[in-house]
Amino acid sequence: MYLAKGVRTQVAIVGAGPAGLFLAHLLHRQGIESVILEQRSRAEIEGTIRAGVLEHWVVDLMNDMGLGDRLMREGHFHSGITLRFGRRSHHIDMSELTGGKRVTVYAQHEVIRDLVAARLEDGGRILFGVSDVDVRDIDCAAPRVLFRQSPDGPMEELPCDFIAGCDGFHGPSRQAIPAACRREYQITYPFGWLGILAEAPPSHPELIYANHERGFALLSTRSPEVQRLYIQCDPRDDIANWSDDRIWSELHRRLEDGSGWTLTEGPVFQKGIIGMRSFVCEPMRHGRLFIAGDAAHIVPPTGAKGLNLAVADVLVLSRAMAAYYSTGSSDGLDGYCATCLARIWKAERFSWHMTTMLHRNPGESAFEQRLHLAELDHLVHSRAAMAALAENYVGLPME
Amino acid sequence: MYLAKGVRTQVAIVGAGPAGLFLAHLLHRQGIESVILEQRSRAEIEGTIRAGVLEHWVVDLMNDMGLGDRLMREGHFHSGITLRFGRRSHHIDMSELTGGKRVTVYAQHEVIRDLVAARLEDGGRILFGVSDVDVRDIDCAAPRVLFRQSPDGPMEELPCDFIAGCDGFHGPSRQAIPAACRREYQITYPFGWLGILAEAPPSHPELIYANHERGFALLSTRSPEVQRLYIQCDPRDDIANWSDDRIWSELHRRLEDGSGWTLTEGPVFQKGIIGMRSFVCEPMRHGRLFIAGDAAHIVPPTGAKGLNLAVADVLVLSRAMAAYYSTGSSDGLDGYCATCLARIWKAERFSWHMTTMLHRNPGESAFEQRLHLAELDHLVHSRAAMAALAENYVGLPME
Repeated sequence: MYLAKGVRTQVAIVGAGPAGLFLAHLLHRQGIESVILEQRSRAEIEGTIRAGVLEHWVVDLMNDMGLGDRLMREGHFHSGITLRFGRRSHHIDMSELTGGKRVTVYAQHEVIRDLVAARLEDGGRILFGVSDVDVRDIDCAAPRVLFRQSPDGPMEELPCDFIAGCDGFHGPSRQAIPAACRREYQITYPFGWLGILAEAPPSHPELIYANHERGFALLSTRSPEVQRLYIQCDPRDDIANWSDDRIWSELHRRLEDGSGWTLTEGPVFQKGIIGMRSFVCEPMRHGRLFIAGDAAHIVPPTGAKGLNLAVADVLVLSRAMAAYYSTGSSDGLDGYCATCLARIWKAERFSWHMTTMLHRNPGESAFEQRLHLAELDHLVHSRAAMAALAENYVGLPME
Repeated sequence: MYLAKGVRTQVAIVGAGPAGLFLAHLLHRQGIESVILEQRSRAEIEGTIRAGVLEHWVVDLMNDMGLGDRLMREGHFHSGITLRFGRRSHHIDMSELTGGKRVTVYAQHEVIRDLVAARLEDGGRILFGVSDVDVRDIDCAAPRVLFRQSPDGPMEELPCDFIAGCDGFHGPSRQAIPAACRREYQITYPFGWLGILAEAPPSHPELIYANHERGFALLSTRSPEVQRLYIQCDPRDDIANWSDDRIWSELHRRLEDGSGWTLTEGPVFQKGIIGMRSFVCEPMRHGRLFIAGDAAHIVPPTGAKGLNLAVADVLVLSRAMAAYYSTGSSDGLDGYCATCLARIWKAERFSWHMTTMLHRNPGESAFEQRLHLAELDHLVHSRAAMAALAENYVGLPME
């Protein structure tokens, strides 16, 4: 797609991740025009394999939007998880604890494929492979996004009413909020995840989260043929230090509980190490720029909240913009930060809690390390504590 | 009381705090003899004013033991607490959340008075004002406690079957466990409590726990005429820096929420600063020595668990000793540590959680500080999270 010179739009969306794509769809449903500018190619965003656990209301939203067919066919519906610590396994029945809610394991790049295809089918404008994206005049009534449609092409501009910065943690949008106007809250954890994809059938019907003296491990799933597994490691470690044998050996030790259940191995076809961070930027708005998703906040993956928070942000934003265009009221836009941040901080708390409770942190005192086992022990013996975990895991209500 | 030479007993109890006194009563009910050795005078232990919040089962236990008359007459029964943060107050109805359970505010020294009086009336032996207490031969079948009945008196010994070390954090019992055999877990918090007693009527029917940007504050109560109040302060601060005016000014700022409710002032007749610590010693047994209460573990006062944990320890111990004397089985004695520590770590977790959530810790990152407000916000909006807090506050079930 090529954008003709002189074109303007109502909402310029920077980034075609989950936040940008959901926003374009939600705005379209309200009759609001948008253009998405994405630096990567379509093949790249659709081919970057990333895990995904969808909260119940996100699945409902995709179905409402008519985008849920493949999700309902290929997604895995999980009504519980298993926590493993002290050589024992404890099942947490999320559905029973939350009045029937569940999560859906459906990879993020699959969500992206569905949203891109549907958006283009609707005639939506997504410009892939743009470069030198720059956000301008956000303090004025007429903001603009500057960009090149090809690396050698001329600098062009997209005038608009609003800019939605959905360009992730490293994108330019957040940086466009003057440093004096924003406050950033951050934790960088002293551990990371070594993740693999393996050609193997599922070892277990649900996710297993293990706190083992050698470190955290997570058994997840992707499809009947492909399994996803993680182990806690040093975030600065080199993946070259981890042979497949060493990885499987750690996975067996950390995930098996002596009950006879064993992990099914298979050829590893992807592996890598990621760091872990908690991050929040306040505010999430400056003038006519609204940032959403990873551009505004990062959660460690332990709580599986990243994608869900991005969708929550843009749902709030789309409603605020719809109210603005239909009634002229900017109340919703003015409330964007407060509404989103209340949910974001709850998800940050939950993600931090799951992360600290389940990992071994060599920098913590012996007391703090022992406390995490007390937390797990309290959790599996208290219906109230399990229910509090479950309601966060399946997703807090989204009005 | 004077102990004649050559006397022996079944259980020598070091310390006449709540742990030692409850233990003597519980053993007596099972027909087991004990002698309590206490370094302080009776007047001293009965006159050291300390707060007390009793879990529901402790009140039931005192009534069962026939020791609950004054408690039921003079105690204050609280079915909820108020949490105050972000300029707003939130009531947590503990009773409604826990199927009718409540806590009882009844000062620790009042409990001690009741237990001492009843023990002496029963002919129980409590030696006050002993000195140079030493615990010996705990690895053998015939342990002994050495002591002097008066500072200038001769060293005497009390041979026994078992020694119960109920002599608090600074007592000799824990130190008698060889260092190589024990592990100590500890946090020293970078803040303390400045506590006052004031001659004033109650300002509020229930406890108010406030997280304020200037620091934590707690409004408690002692009697219709005397109120107990606390504010977070630097633990190294000198109480001389705190005039009554300065204290009241801080209390007003931290406790009032702008709703019109005000704190009632009155003459301050006691004030002091205490540090805050979390501490656990594992194991709690070595040979024929069993440690209990503050000798084995300390909680910061925020969760009001100290006295309750001490009673839980000695209830477990008294049952184990009763089984040993009646059947010869040492299973209960062998299980003492594991049974107690499961409860202790849960109480340590709860106390740490209440403490970190409600205080301002200048050593924490901005992210962590913000997280505590997210924790409070999550709590007051989630029935499950409130129920988990309530069940810990009123006391986890004691089988």
